[in-house]
Amino acid sequence: MTKQNEEELSAITRQVQHMGGLVELALDRSLVALLERDPVIAREVIDSDGEVDELENQIEEHCLEYLALRQPVARDLRLVCGVLKINSDLERMADLAVNVAERAEVLSRVPPLPFRPDVSRLAATAKRMLRDSLDALVRLDSVLAWRTWKADVEADKLYRELIGQAIQFMREHPDRIGDVMHLTGALRNLERLADHATNVAEDVIFVVQGRIVRHHMQELDEALAKSGEHP
Amino acid sequence: MTKQNEEELSAITRQVQHMGGLVELALDRSLVALLERDPVIAREVIDSDGEVDELENQIEEHCLEYLALRQPVARDLRLVCGVLKINSDLERMADLAVNVAERAEVLSRVPPLPFRPDVSRLAATAKRMLRDSLDALVRLDSVLAWRTWKADVEADKLYRELIGQAIQFMREHPDRIGDVMHLTGALRNLERLADHATNVAEDVIFVVQGRIVRHHMQELDEALAKSGEHP
Repeated sequence: MTKQNEEELSAITRQVQHMGGLVELALDRSLVALLERDPVIAREVIDSDGEVDELENQIEEHCLEYLALRQPVARDLRLVCGVLKINSDLERMADLAVNVAERAEVLSRVPPLPFRPDVSRLAATAKRMLRDSLDALVRLDSVLAWRTWKADVEADKLYRELIGQAIQFMREHPDRIGDVMHLTGALRNLERLADHATNVAEDVIFVVQGRIVRHHMQELDEALAKSGEHP
Repeated sequence: MTKQNEEELSAITRQVQHMGGLVELALDRSLVALLERDPVIAREVIDSDGEVDELENQIEEHCLEYLALRQPVARDLRLVCGVLKINSDLERMADLAVNVAERAEVLSRVPPLPFRPDVSRLAATAKRMLRDSLDALVRLDSVLAWRTWKADVEADKLYRELIGQAIQFMREHPDRIGDVMHLTGALRNLERLADHATNVAEDVIFVVQGRIVRHHMQELDEALAKSGEHP
């Protein structure tokens, strides 16, 4: 790889990292809006989405330019194609954070719910997965990507618990069902954020190892557990 | 474009069409399972997902091979990169159909709900959007892609109506909240299917016109409405 190619690829990766940082910030702020019932912060998150959208377009253009001008092969080609897909995932994650903020905005206008599920824990799991998946991309670290992928089990379990609690609360307070549905909507968006982080992790493993592990992670994971090997 | 390149590109597009056909079939069958409370059909849909997964991997490998060996530029490059993203969208659409089938399986085991929202209409909208977006890809037809994108307004409106009805029903039947939550889950998955079809449509417009319209569709649409022009 020439020095110029290398520099361009790191510029692309840095843009992706920057986008990840924006998503993380949106997620943090949407959670504050939700927990503190703050419509102003919610609105800020909603209005700031344009920055991520523009960045997504820039990254895509950057990738296509690189493909057209540098015509990479092997790992560099996989990296650029991986970034094209990771870019979409990050943009959808930002949309999910915005959706959490929209739910927060609605909920700030109704009387406080006496039901307080542990949203922060689910959000923290999603955020850690987002950060780990992008660290894995920057460091081309398939072991970290693998760990990120595995953490989704935890997010799913937590989500199911919280939904169970919400159903119980709705049964006891049918008059608040409409409001709780906004809260479960926020929970679902956090769980989907974690799902997107697993997509990123799968793409990182493909970039590093050159094999598409998607749809085969479960069996590979079981085989590794038996053999005691690392991915 | 050489004849060989052309043939390879149509082979890739045909694979995408085939995958779209599988998604459509899964969607149809999951709806039958849901409406007819048929756990056997639901299970068939769930078990058939592996075929789409394999096809996704094949299409991705095919695209990367094409990029590495043919080093396309301009529209061919956009087409291959567009397919890489459309491929992911289609696989997620198949997952959503599977999720509808999973909800159908659960609901087939509980007493029938007296609540019968118009799921078929939402499913029909999502299916038409899926089909139109892939027809637009095959014919490189940005007008059809544009129409697909616009149809999402209808899907969103329908979804909101149905959720409103579900909330009303839950208020009156708190003992069935857990079951209705599975039904609203199925509705949400259909609405997300339509969302993915708009992503495909945006990618088709990019392939054809060479401009990233994503995040600018609304303003472009308004400008076009004013000028009376076609996209």
